[in-house]
Amino acid sequence: MQLLDETHVVEAAERIAGRVRSTPTVDVVVPDLGDLPVNLKLEHLQHAGSFKPRGAFNRLLSAEVPEAGVICASGGNHGIAVAHAAKVLGLHAEVFLPLSSSPVKVQMLRALGASVRQVGSVYGEAHEAMRERALETRALEVHPYDHPATVAGQGTLFREWLTQASDLTTLVVAVGGGGLMAGALAALGHRLKIVAVEPRHAPTLAVALDADEPVDVDVSGIASDSLGARRLGSIAFALARHHGVVSVTVGDDEINAAQKWLWGHARQFVEPGGAAAMAGLLSRGYRPSRDERVGVLICGANVEPASVFG
Amino acid sequence: MQLLDETHVVEAAERIAGRVRSTPTVDVVVPDLGDLPVNLKLEHLQHAGSFKPRGAFNRLLSAEVPEAGVICASGGNHGIAVAHAAKVLGLHAEVFLPLSSSPVKVQMLRALGASVRQVGSVYGEAHEAMRERALETRALEVHPYDHPATVAGQGTLFREWLTQASDLTTLVVAVGGGGLMAGALAALGHRLKIVAVEPRHAPTLAVALDADEPVDVDVSGIASDSLGARRLGSIAFALARHHGVVSVTVGDDEINAAQKWLWGHARQFVEPGGAAAMAGLLSRGYRPSRDERVGVLICGANVEPASVFG
Repeated sequence: MQLLDETHVVEAAERIAGRVRSTPTVDVVVPDLGDLPVNLKLEHLQHAGSFKPRGAFNRLLSAEVPEAGVICASGGNHGIAVAHAAKVLGLHAEVFLPLSSSPVKVQMLRALGASVRQVGSVYGEAHEAMRERALETRALEVHPYDHPATVAGQGTLFREWLTQASDLTTLVVAVGGGGLMAGALAALGHRLKIVAVEPRHAPTLAVALDADEPVDVDVSGIASDSLGARRLGSIAFALARHHGVVSVTVGDDEINAAQKWLWGHARQFVEPGGAAAMAGLLSRGYRPSRDERVGVLICGANVEPASVFG
Repeated sequence: MQLLDETHVVEAAERIAGRVRSTPTVDVVVPDLGDLPVNLKLEHLQHAGSFKPRGAFNRLLSAEVPEAGVICASGGNHGIAVAHAAKVLGLHAEVFLPLSSSPVKVQMLRALGASVRQVGSVYGEAHEAMRERALETRALEVHPYDHPATVAGQGTLFREWLTQASDLTTLVVAVGGGGLMAGALAALGHRLKIVAVEPRHAPTLAVALDADEPVDVDVSGIASDSLGARRLGSIAFALARHHGVVSVTVGDDEINAAQKWLWGHARQFVEPGGAAAMAGLLSRGYRPSRDERVGVLICGANVEPASVFG
């Protein structure tokens, strides 16, 4: 398999130009870490509240989308991003969720014009139903992370970031299925250090690096709605093996503390998955050396405010 | 009285350099307004959660601060900013609040090392007690808005903004006592249009323009903790008369709708006063022409999240 690289990311950036926001960055210092300077990339200001529209737009714009439109199974940021991209591009989107999904997410998907199908009690059942339905309608199935176009789309974030903070040496990103990390590695893995932070309760990367292949893991914890993939993507694994990554895991308490830190120090209110990268730093899971210039990616804020402080 | 101008703002910027954050901006389009492009300045990412440290640092750094330190009466963004600046500069701060102040604010001030004095049932009584105490201790009294150094400090925000978005023609800002608007006018009033938005329940500017002098107004409503000054500052009035401003008032419902819009479209969670400028636009209180390039200032986020959505 040919590894994804910078050229794919450049193509993706051209393809999705004007469809996604250039999200801002801000320099902060972290008193808790000896006044460490950190550049925060505020990607939760992206349309649909997470980085996911970058990959979704690139996937949809680089495929032949049939009359039936697009289909996916996700009640999280992926589903919202696919629904958003489909709406903007005038395509029909069908999104499968378990019956247990929060009414807020169902409402958000409906507001984006998606056809919402609630099936089964857990995600796996909704996913099965989606697969059956896709065979029937021949709609384009949009995988949340393990597709080259999706990864290249996420990679555009990192090229953009370096135009905003060209002195960065080390980027800290969250890992679920690994699409975001893979995008970072494809875009910049040959010249920057990528630190990959994942919940201790959903350690797809750590376990894959250990086993030397992606394997299923048990998933739980407060970030599971966004970082709760059961298995690392094959594209992410290949890129992690090729470029190398620093793998860090964080506990739920550390993620929640990072959410509170981001509110307390920068008035940014983000979901658990969106704070995971910051947790990797605050927990000292990753300790940068003095000559590193560290960027932390805040990747999502699709959360109900009361859930963080309530 | 000599009018404050650009030169005072440039001096302030040099004085406070390194003490305040350069806050980010982001370009959004507003579907509700025919896809109007708007540049948002995210000043609520400033230290202490509002623009106020700019003025506070400039005031403290341009004065001879006595041994007794600084003193003010405010349970809001001013008090928090003065406590923050004093802490950073190694000065003692004494902050007076009414007994009715929220425990969260008292706690925040204490965490910043301020001596907190709770006196009386309303702000006026706390203010009286502060004046008496200032005569006794000879601490430097820091006015929330009507001081040239404070206004010049707030003005630094607007010079910074134009380096980030040089094509702006029109800036929309919130008004309480008018220190922020005065900073905008001093920095840029000779070449940009300033739109001043205030709550209908605290219309210090509208009433002052009507009466042709600052007069006391009744204050109430959801933004009164940050935009609830009873009277426009004399510096703000002089600058508004000299440069001219567009005066817009908004209702509490419009402010709350703007808070929800900012969360829904940019995942920014701000206090009522911080959303007032956006409300001026969303409510169509100000309707820009096609050739204007509009910037909206988000000026504060010292709020408990549950209060917006709960």
